[in-house]
Amino acid sequence: MGPLMNRQIRLKSRPAGSPTVDNFEIADGPMPVGDVVRRTLWLSLDPYMRGRMSDGPSYAAPVALGDVMCGHTVSQVVESKNPDFRPGDFVAGYDGWQMYGVSSGKDLRKLDPSGVPISTALGVLGMPGMTAFVGLIDIGQPKAGETVVVSAASGAVGAVVGQLAKIKGCRAVGIAGSADKCRYVVDELGFDACINYKTEDLAPALRAACPNGVDIDFENVGGAVLAAVLRVLNKGARIPLCGLISEYNATANTPGPNLRPLLVHRAMIKGFIVSDHADRAMAFHQEVAPLVKSGRIKFREDIVAGLDHAPEAFLGLLEGRNFGKLIVRVSEPGR
Amino acid sequence: MGPLMNRQIRLKSRPAGSPTVDNFEIADGPMPVGDVVRRTLWLSLDPYMRGRMSDGPSYAAPVALGDVMCGHTVSQVVESKNPDFRPGDFVAGYDGWQMYGVSSGKDLRKLDPSGVPISTALGVLGMPGMTAFVGLIDIGQPKAGETVVVSAASGAVGAVVGQLAKIKGCRAVGIAGSADKCRYVVDELGFDACINYKTEDLAPALRAACPNGVDIDFENVGGAVLAAVLRVLNKGARIPLCGLISEYNATANTPGPNLRPLLVHRAMIKGFIVSDHADRAMAFHQEVAPLVKSGRIKFREDIVAGLDHAPEAFLGLLEGRNFGKLIVRVSEPGR
Repeated sequence: MGPLMNRQIRLKSRPAGSPTVDNFEIADGPMPVGDVVRRTLWLSLDPYMRGRMSDGPSYAAPVALGDVMCGHTVSQVVESKNPDFRPGDFVAGYDGWQMYGVSSGKDLRKLDPSGVPISTALGVLGMPGMTAFVGLIDIGQPKAGETVVVSAASGAVGAVVGQLAKIKGCRAVGIAGSADKCRYVVDELGFDACINYKTEDLAPALRAACPNGVDIDFENVGGAVLAAVLRVLNKGARIPLCGLISEYNATANTPGPNLRPLLVHRAMIKGFIVSDHADRAMAFHQEVAPLVKSGRIKFREDIVAGLDHAPEAFLGLLEGRNFGKLIVRVSEPGR
Repeated sequence: MGPLMNRQIRLKSRPAGSPTVDNFEIADGPMPVGDVVRRTLWLSLDPYMRGRMSDGPSYAAPVALGDVMCGHTVSQVVESKNPDFRPGDFVAGYDGWQMYGVSSGKDLRKLDPSGVPISTALGVLGMPGMTAFVGLIDIGQPKAGETVVVSAASGAVGAVVGQLAKIKGCRAVGIAGSADKCRYVVDELGFDACINYKTEDLAPALRAACPNGVDIDFENVGGAVLAAVLRVLNKGARIPLCGLISEYNATANTPGPNLRPLLVHRAMIKGFIVSDHADRAMAFHQEVAPLVKSGRIKFREDIVAGLDHAPEAFLGLLEGRNFGKLIVRVSEPGR
């Protein structure tokens, strides 16, 4: 057996339109050396990563060509010179698409493996869950009796949006891309309704599912979905704009929806990035962690086995082929 | 001389696309009878009236075919059974495109003719001025040092937006449709810069006029103007959406701008209608009336002589042919 190497997936080229597996390169780097060395157990795959593959204007710098792809990780400490971490500890970090990470430890959050599965630190109790919380609660400001629509409803963010909306006394209506997903959203997650955008005519389906109109549209998708929702807005509606996944692979600047409904209904669209709202992390954990532990907020993981499969799984994510929070099992915990 | 008649301009047919003078009908109605009868001195012409000509969804019911076109008016009381009003009093109301109006008087606001011209109750101190105030101050929330862009900058609303922005310590950049208008906006109103959207290339012109980016876009126009401004937004930018005059005559549902910049810059667009904000009328008058009286906020009126010319003047308004607040001199004050 040769020396231990650090398996990595690097960005090889920038995609024009839809990425392909050829935009990625699988390689073995040297083992990292430093204060806290950890081995990746779980890697999160998220739509925002598509933005990091391009060098157009965005809210964060792109991944440089040849660099390891970025991403949230749950890892286990292997070696530590930092007294706050001991070998065997589970930590959440941002080590990217690789087997090992290293840092001083300042960027790590220790995880308690006794309650919920530690992989939830990448989903319902991680960045996606907090995105749902900040977007729905802080920007959407739901009031009991209102109707909340969420696109990509079975996804990591959408599932939490709808469940939180129900807890706040709202009607929750999902939009998802298959009959299975819609069944899950209604039967398991407890949404009031879910529309299959691939088989149903969005405008009448929305009208039927939202008999009192739409007060909050938690927007993950854009395109035809957003345009349809704009037609059923109530006066004073709020649209937390979280993502526009339908456009991420577009090569030209695609037009957006006609904005007249914002005027007619005095509605608001507000883009947001969860990383701007770090001051809400405590409130998020205090409110949502007990709900997850008690089973009142449910979650579903779509698990990919092995780091080498991350590229194709990520391409599937951009097309909605995942079902639940997409995570990669990179290695098994030791000890 | 025959009996006194009430000259009226009625909506004859609904326009498909751009309205024409044939959509209006000039007629003589009977003199109105009731508690407070007044003769119109000034009629306001405003872009929102285009919406009232159509029966599509909007924030207010359309004018019915055969009815008098709606509109804000400044009038003089002719007869009154209401002790609050005496013949000769000047009042602001909503009597529409006609020579005489009548009501109990509850819908009237008495005007003091000693300070500023009473016609300002239709412009800088009326609905357009309050629109500027609510949109800029309440929705835009300007902070000293920020950059405010306003389209239709020489118009009744835009002129107040830019001048209020300067008073709040902001950089004010206008967009207008002629060299004369741009000169007026900078030299008379004191904006820092003004872009002629008909002759200049908007994107580079905006970049040059807004070296620190755009924090507030008070949007009156939509279309290419809005799309260009979205490219130079700063993080956390606010876009009070007041109007989309570039689209009002469109027959199809025109697409809007790509919304990615809202996400990238965590920006907000919020549609608003001034009539929702009646609770701010007192604050508006207290803050803005002294500024107008002292000459610190300037205004310009574009006066059309005679009610019969209202239709063609209104068509010109939709194409930006007016220069300043467009008002119709319907009759001369008596006594």
